[in-house]
Amino acid sequence: MISKRINEMMETSSFIRKMFETGSELKAKYGAENVFDFSLGNPHALPPENFNSVLLEKAADKTRHAYMPNAGYPDVRQKVAEFASTEQQKVLSGDNVVMTSGAGGALNAVLKTLLNPGDTVIASTPCFMEYKFYCDNHGGSLVLVPGKKDFNIDVENIEGAITEKTAAVIINSPNNPSGRVYPEETIIALGRMLKKKSSEIGRTVYLISDEPYRKIVYDGITVPPVLKHYNNAIICTSYSKDLSIPGERIGYAAVNPDAEDYDNLINGIILCNRILGYVNAPALMQRTIAELQGVSVDINLYKKKRDMLAGGLKEMGYEFRIPEGTFYLLVKAPGGDDMKMVDLLLQEKILTVPGRGFGVPEYFRIAFCVDENVIPGAMDGFRRAAEKAGML
Amino acid sequence: MISKRINEMMETSSFIRKMFETGSELKAKYGAENVFDFSLGNPHALPPENFNSVLLEKAADKTRHAYMPNAGYPDVRQKVAEFASTEQQKVLSGDNVVMTSGAGGALNAVLKTLLNPGDTVIASTPCFMEYKFYCDNHGGSLVLVPGKKDFNIDVENIEGAITEKTAAVIINSPNNPSGRVYPEETIIALGRMLKKKSSEIGRTVYLISDEPYRKIVYDGITVPPVLKHYNNAIICTSYSKDLSIPGERIGYAAVNPDAEDYDNLINGIILCNRILGYVNAPALMQRTIAELQGVSVDINLYKKKRDMLAGGLKEMGYEFRIPEGTFYLLVKAPGGDDMKMVDLLLQEKILTVPGRGFGVPEYFRIAFCVDENVIPGAMDGFRRAAEKAGML
Repeated sequence: MISKRINEMMETSSFIRKMFETGSELKAKYGAENVFDFSLGNPHALPPENFNSVLLEKAADKTRHAYMPNAGYPDVRQKVAEFASTEQQKVLSGDNVVMTSGAGGALNAVLKTLLNPGDTVIASTPCFMEYKFYCDNHGGSLVLVPGKKDFNIDVENIEGAITEKTAAVIINSPNNPSGRVYPEETIIALGRMLKKKSSEIGRTVYLISDEPYRKIVYDGITVPPVLKHYNNAIICTSYSKDLSIPGERIGYAAVNPDAEDYDNLINGIILCNRILGYVNAPALMQRTIAELQGVSVDINLYKKKRDMLAGGLKEMGYEFRIPEGTFYLLVKAPGGDDMKMVDLLLQEKILTVPGRGFGVPEYFRIAFCVDENVIPGAMDGFRRAAEKAGML
Repeated sequence: MISKRINEMMETSSFIRKMFETGSELKAKYGAENVFDFSLGNPHALPPENFNSVLLEKAADKTRHAYMPNAGYPDVRQKVAEFASTEQQKVLSGDNVVMTSGAGGALNAVLKTLLNPGDTVIASTPCFMEYKFYCDNHGGSLVLVPGKKDFNIDVENIEGAITEKTAAVIINSPNNPSGRVYPEETIIALGRMLKKKSSEIGRTVYLISDEPYRKIVYDGITVPPVLKHYNNAIICTSYSKDLSIPGERIGYAAVNPDAEDYDNLINGIILCNRILGYVNAPALMQRTIAELQGVSVDINLYKKKRDMLAGGLKEMGYEFRIPEGTFYLLVKAPGGDDMKMVDLLLQEKILTVPGRGFGVPEYFRIAFCVDENVIPGAMDGFRRAAEKAGML
């Protein structure tokens, strides 16, 4: 009775639900403290102290829960633009920013604005697979091209996939699930290639930079700017990870003021933010994040977990590249079989996500945004699974 | 460069933007206090006192800003279900409820779940025209049928519009823009007709009841239940109007547990809530409204404004039906020309919305959720416009 497409989606996404259900069963049976859940990118760190004080201060004002313009409060957009100008090394004004319901809201408003029926959007694996749904929502489809062995994007591969149907390329750096930060020379090369190809095919190929993990980076790394290196670029991001508030749904889209068809682009995003039913980003959270530009959780907390996890797993023979950002570790599945490895770990009450969920079935993902005791508690299980997999 | 469809939408919706811009110009030129803005359904009443105390209490808990299940917190869903059970005279459990980003978010998740490409959704005029976009978002289209002279829906007209392509009928009571509350016998007749037609065409025609104004009613009226009278019905609603918090984007969808294809329907709505990029309804607002079931702003405040406005306009010869709910008054445009009347009022610095924005070009809408001084201040202008229109 319901939409055929949604019915199919529920069937094909059932393995994720099965994973989730198995996890819930394990927790019910053995107690949540005896199950080691590395499956969700749900930031564990508490929001920074000043998030709470600003939130309480803003919540005390009873007069500000009404509608505002669909793009958000003008003063909030201005503050967001000022900070983003530094990150992107490009002067932005509040007019270039649309406040959204998280990065998911921003991506959907942007994709709806750009896509004609049958258009394609290119992403490089490994990548966040919700993009597939987001493109499909608006009559387009996602085309996956393999990234490099070191999880950097392969600009030539992307170039090879561009056709007259290509509306956009999506990148995600720091990357979920690999933790890779794409180097500045790669962004420069990508921008050059997109400019050249756009002119070749007679159609602007926009670059969508999905960057909610920009502040979650380690070892003194800085995430290079994107708007500086390509005019037809749009940032989609959120405060979910850096402020540890993913349930609150607050983020933004920022459009390069030098983009082609700029007026239609920004007004289209504002219109789509409205007609997709978002209407506007949640009011109280807009007013709160405005005062917290540049603030983030204690990154050191995640760094310690990364190092503890990576150190332990390395000893056992697991193979991976140390992530430069995010709270994910993408690990090679012994024998290249992600489902088998995820299953072996499940027998140890360890929940992880098979790499096929990110377009790389020879890997599995460990989300290390977990409670204090989860990593040490899981180490024996990781070792036993490695033994069973024949690694030791 | 952007999507053709979005480009067209921006062009066709430009008259609304022009209205908005004219309003902004007038305010800039004459001062906001000298412009009488009746154009927006932005509730003026402050949120009830206990909204603020509950919000502050919930905001003090630093640990609850993370992701929760896409359908919302289980305890919130349970509390919402309990209250909705009373309103709908149908026993609901938390499992039947999906927390959403306002009614707009609920409608989009529900329509995406139901619609196959080319499907239609029927609505009765006058109605909220965003439905058109919401259907279009998901490959469907809105079919408008005229309501009765007294703004009640015409069940026979709806029946006549049902084809094998019909996925759903949307009703909105209390109605924006007419303020009409559809009587219980109409809902009963609608349910019977939909059951009969569904069996005739061999396809379940779902009933979507969009009811964010359920608590904004006057003169002791109660809005009749919908789930009680039709099994294949879904409620979409929000706390925007009754708590005066439309900027916060909090609402829900509730599915009749006796609906056909129930499991796919509820799971589809949860999936669509996720993949449309909403992910989940804002966390803090979920936890807040859970404690405020049945609470609403002081309705008497709106009743006073309704009576003041209606009393004044009646004397001047304006024709309308007294609204039983909402904060809208739908007034006949002299000569049946909404644009002309709206323009005459604009000359008096009075902003209203032409009826064609709701499918009834012979009317114009006055939103009376305005500041204390706006109604008295506008009375002379309304009188002069009536004179110019030849009513006096």
